[in-house]
Amino acid sequence: MYYYQALQRNATRLGNTIGTSFGDQEHTWKEVENRVARLASALVKLGINKQAHVAILAMNSDKYFEYYNAIPWAGSVVVPLNIRWSLQENIYSLKDSQSSVLFVDDTFLPMAKALIASCDKIKFVIYMGDKETPEGMFNYEQLLKDSTPMTPSKGSYDDLAGIFYTGGTTGFPKGVMLSHANLWTSAISVVAEMGLNKPDDRYLHAAPMFHLADVGVSYAMVMGGMTQVFIPFFEPTSVIAIIEKKKINHTLLVPTMITMMLATPAINEANFSSLKSLVYGASPMPHGTLIAAMEKMPTVGFMQAYGQSEMSPLISILTADYHVLEGPKAGKLRSAGRPGYCVNVEIRDAVGNTLPTGEVGEIAVLGPNSMMGYWNDHEQTAKTVIDGWIMTGDAGYVDEDGFIFLVDRVKDMIVTGGENVFSAEVENALSHHAAIQESVVIAIPSEQWGEAVHAIIRVNENQTTTKESVIDHCREHIAGYKIPHSIEFRTEPFPMTGAGKIRKVELRAPYWENQQRAIS
Amino acid sequence: MYYYQALQRNATRLGNTIGTSFGDQEHTWKEVENRVARLASALVKLGINKQAHVAILAMNSDKYFEYYNAIPWAGSVVVPLNIRWSLQENIYSLKDSQSSVLFVDDTFLPMAKALIASCDKIKFVIYMGDKETPEGMFNYEQLLKDSTPMTPSKGSYDDLAGIFYTGGTTGFPKGVMLSHANLWTSAISVVAEMGLNKPDDRYLHAAPMFHLADVGVSYAMVMGGMTQVFIPFFEPTSVIAIIEKKKINHTLLVPTMITMMLATPAINEANFSSLKSLVYGASPMPHGTLIAAMEKMPTVGFMQAYGQSEMSPLISILTADYHVLEGPKAGKLRSAGRPGYCVNVEIRDAVGNTLPTGEVGEIAVLGPNSMMGYWNDHEQTAKTVIDGWIMTGDAGYVDEDGFIFLVDRVKDMIVTGGENVFSAEVENALSHHAAIQESVVIAIPSEQWGEAVHAIIRVNENQTTTKESVIDHCREHIAGYKIPHSIEFRTEPFPMTGAGKIRKVELRAPYWENQQRAIS
Repeated sequence: MYYYQALQRNATRLGNTIGTSFGDQEHTWKEVENRVARLASALVKLGINKQAHVAILAMNSDKYFEYYNAIPWAGSVVVPLNIRWSLQENIYSLKDSQSSVLFVDDTFLPMAKALIASCDKIKFVIYMGDKETPEGMFNYEQLLKDSTPMTPSKGSYDDLAGIFYTGGTTGFPKGVMLSHANLWTSAISVVAEMGLNKPDDRYLHAAPMFHLADVGVSYAMVMGGMTQVFIPFFEPTSVIAIIEKKKINHTLLVPTMITMMLATPAINEANFSSLKSLVYGASPMPHGTLIAAMEKMPTVGFMQAYGQSEMSPLISILTADYHVLEGPKAGKLRSAGRPGYCVNVEIRDAVGNTLPTGEVGEIAVLGPNSMMGYWNDHEQTAKTVIDGWIMTGDAGYVDEDGFIFLVDRVKDMIVTGGENVFSAEVENALSHHAAIQESVVIAIPSEQWGEAVHAIIRVNENQTTTKESVIDHCREHIAGYKIPHSIEFRTEPFPMTGAGKIRKVELRAPYWENQQRAIS
Repeated sequence: MYYYQALQRNATRLGNTIGTSFGDQEHTWKEVENRVARLASALVKLGINKQAHVAILAMNSDKYFEYYNAIPWAGSVVVPLNIRWSLQENIYSLKDSQSSVLFVDDTFLPMAKALIASCDKIKFVIYMGDKETPEGMFNYEQLLKDSTPMTPSKGSYDDLAGIFYTGGTTGFPKGVMLSHANLWTSAISVVAEMGLNKPDDRYLHAAPMFHLADVGVSYAMVMGGMTQVFIPFFEPTSVIAIIEKKKINHTLLVPTMITMMLATPAINEANFSSLKSLVYGASPMPHGTLIAAMEKMPTVGFMQAYGQSEMSPLISILTADYHVLEGPKAGKLRSAGRPGYCVNVEIRDAVGNTLPTGEVGEIAVLGPNSMMGYWNDHEQTAKTVIDGWIMTGDAGYVDEDGFIFLVDRVKDMIVTGGENVFSAEVENALSHHAAIQESVVIAIPSEQWGEAVHAIIRVNENQTTTKESVIDHCREHIAGYKIPHSIEFRTEPFPMTGAGKIRKVELRAPYWENQQRAIS
């Protein structure tokens, strides 16, 4: 269950089939293994220590996949940096992680130079690009050429495998420490539940590879033997095109990506006949968007994976058979599915008591995939890990069939006139309005109610609507106290985290400049 | 990944479907969970300590399944005793394990009384039978009636979950210590590889439940949500009948059971239409027997699971798609398949060097399912676990597609005139002879060759053959030096271990009374 063992196993059992495919460049599993074993060997020759921290800042590519395997092969620890973060955020995580090596591609060369200037612990920089190697850096392909394969490093399955920075929505980033066993138990549970034992299939890395949503699902796909296909970054028309061109069978998209695809004219002529499963997750999927996506892609098996970096990342799965509007399995579409094979779930009240079926509280989770803790941050670890259980910060309940229903982030709930309003529920109602492309519902201060429900709405291109129309629509779907008290229309995109989550904290901030929220 | 979590998960997600079925008695998953939580509670009320060792000596039943879940639920350790062992062997393992509680059914009541008389550490005996409770024992159903469900005990996933005695073929039994994580990683790998995510299916416990072959496969079936069906013990006609009557979809049989089924006239009228997978393992399957079974059951998906108690028990799986005689996947039928998702395999020579593809040596295995060690036996642990790897005692090789081919037990190889003869290869050749039901090939002393190949043969009922016919048959299949030098016919069954393995050491012993074998 070392991270690289899934690659090794494919090299043995599927050696001459295509392992990675990036643009016109393909490598068999045997070739990938050989390249990984040479890259690891080159790093060791450069003198990196066992358990050294090796960062990367790059777009998706086959080389990024090789990095993920070569670093543990050499006995070192991966530190994938967030491609959507600012220079300051990445300086913070690079320094905090105490990384001594940095991998960088052409896109991030300018930022990398600034990073190196600020982080004096970096000893080597590996340039993954195709242009001339900048002075003072090592060329990726040259390192491979100059070295011979090494046998993989072995330690304990409980050794640190990677530090994954999270928490961009608020405060300082936290480095989630995951072991080989953490990552493996999450991924094998995905393989088992999704039935991914068909090695002739192809998986598309469309979501950014630094993020655990892609890491977790793609690791399962590697275990299952699927060819790994890469595009540098998500862009709706190119994703639609590559699914058809490379006959993609599985991919993972975050809800905002699906929203963008649905808003692209190309979707109307798209051919999704190869696509067996579309896993979505990493943030709540508005119900209206999901229904629209299912209508546009009726042959695709939608699967929801609910997780968190802290759980490597699996918490629960809503399998394809529950993505129906009729029949005995209907009625679970708004849920996040049932706990993965390795996960225990409890719902807790504010003082830590376990709540019964149906009652809303904070979701607490436990499993062999629970993180080792936050790197270098005992205080945050102690706040998040209570008696071994990870407090997710998500509010939700479990129904009598064991399905988890998320209602909101605990911090995004709006407490108005003594009632709890879940922003996600209001956003779901708004998602069913024909003219609304996307919306964010936040708490703003109210003298009368403590907090008031405020909606920020992005309307579909070439469409218009009015506040009255929105409020009339809400009246049909949700109770009076949940209806937005104030509405604001916006054309520019919402601010996003690297994982494609909307940064509500940023949208909320201007309203709370002189006040402190009760929940924070 | 506590052992009982798979049951808990089924109680939540499949609560009102049938969990266990034994004769006319059925319990839903919710009922099973409730019974298990009450049994655990009763044991705690009796005063058993956390991590107490709780033995069982019983035929298969739904109560046996409850025992497996209730003991870890209470925080204690299971010690399933071998139903085929003599009183002396079970006294040894009961004493050695330091068990303080014994569960016993009607069949084993007489032996239990003798066991208790010899083992003064036993504090409580739980009577699982339907008759009057013997004096000094607690009644199983009464304990349940008198108690209320407790919440499950929690410790570390690496805590000892069970001690499984093995090694009946030679010397003293060894207590294999397995943790919750050991059992879980093996079982989840079986779920993933066999694609067991269909909770409407039914699994038949036909092999004895004390043995890890059944424990391992059935744990995977519980994870997959399958109803557990029990028969008290294997008997060919009743197994054939129950498969039809209860529409069994999956079962595990050891090769000798399949041999017995093939020799039963009832097989010719049997209806196997419900049976999707027949997992076989625990000892090598003679090639002729496998071909005959595939012919008699053409609609059944045969799967081989190669394992060992020391690996909880998964080492490798030969999936159903490789059980073919033609097409691109043919040619692997004599192999034990490819390593499970969690297992690393190496082939080692006598001094511990790793051998290349295709070369025969001892199979060494490593994984998160590797045992914690032998209970109370550091010497045997040190002999078996070399640098973290488990030495299986099996000789074999890995082909270029990563398939493991077993050639023999290291100790069963015959060294004759400087050549290694694998007894299993000769037995395979004999299995293709029309008149031969079963054979055993062993080394006997030879002045000229050091050791000579000796065959002991059981002929099919109502058939006869001659030594000449057997030797002529062998000449067509194997090289001259592998042909049995001497042949002996036998009508009585071969001596068996509890796992259904033939006790070759017992058959070999009379020939070696005054001599020492070079390999031993």
